Amino acid sequence: MQLSRKADYALRAITFMVNQPENKRSSISEIAESEGIPRDFLAKILKELCRTGFLKSFQGVTGGYQLARPKSEISFLNVIEAMQGEVRVNMCVDETNGCSCNHRDKCTMLPFWKKIQANVVRDLGAVTFDDPKFIRK
Amino acid sequence: MQLSRKADYALRAITFMVNQPENKRSSISEIAESEGIPRDFLAKILKELCRTGFLKSFQGVTGGYQLARPKSEISFLNVIEAMQGEVRVNMCVDETNGCSCNHRDKCTMLPFWKKIQANVVRDLGAVTFDDPKFIRK
Repeated sequence: MQLSRKADYALRAITFMVNQPENKRSSISEIAESEGIPRDFLAKILKELCRTGFLKSFQGVTGGYQLARPKSEISFLNVIEAMQGEVRVNMCVDETNGCSCNHRDKCTMLPFWKKIQANVVRDLGAVTFDDPKFIRK
Repeated sequence: MQLSRKADYALRAITFMVNQPENKRSSISEIAESEGIPRDFLAKILKELCRTGFLKSFQGVTGGYQLARPKSEISFLNVIEAMQGEVRVNMCVDETNGCSCNHRDKCTMLPFWKKIQANVVRDLGAVTFDDPKFIRK
């Protein structure tokens, strides 16, 4: 029930970006160094964060990365889902592929899992990067 | 952020036991068949559930497994923790070994993770097997 390292690194990269002056372009190296993320893994993650619309990249000598959308529109939940797919506290809550057990139609555990799942999704979605607590002192 | 298969199987096995007549001893085979759990994996899990005090086993022809404690004292949380260790939504919330990042002392994300973690632990702990919803119809 633990976040993947990839998603954790993506969130750290976003936290770094949130703390930069507006319009500043950040390089892979400075993000990697500040956040303690292996450079090659970070490069892959930043590419995915661009592809999924969280960051934009600029080529050339003055190139680098910037946030591509308002901080208020970036939540823990949507970064995590972009990095590791839909959040599922148990595989059985995935209605299309998840449950393959013998009690599928009248599972007694499923209602509990659905509630826990809903709370996790709610909590992760409620954390957005416009929260002033993300600003480092 | 997903439950391990081992913990899921353990919970299914407990659900099976909860639905048996009191004092009935259940065999590995009947639990495996009812719950669709591979027999060898289940045998290992049941052994661990005995070792951790959730089940007791009886040898011999009339042998089998029974719950070792009241249903009200078995929660999702403590079965999961017995099977896969402490629940951690992100490795950084493990205060002794978890966080190894560059901002350890003034991490801006940690307070959010701790809150989400606390909610998950609360929700998993609140589900106990004396809930009548666990009785199969």
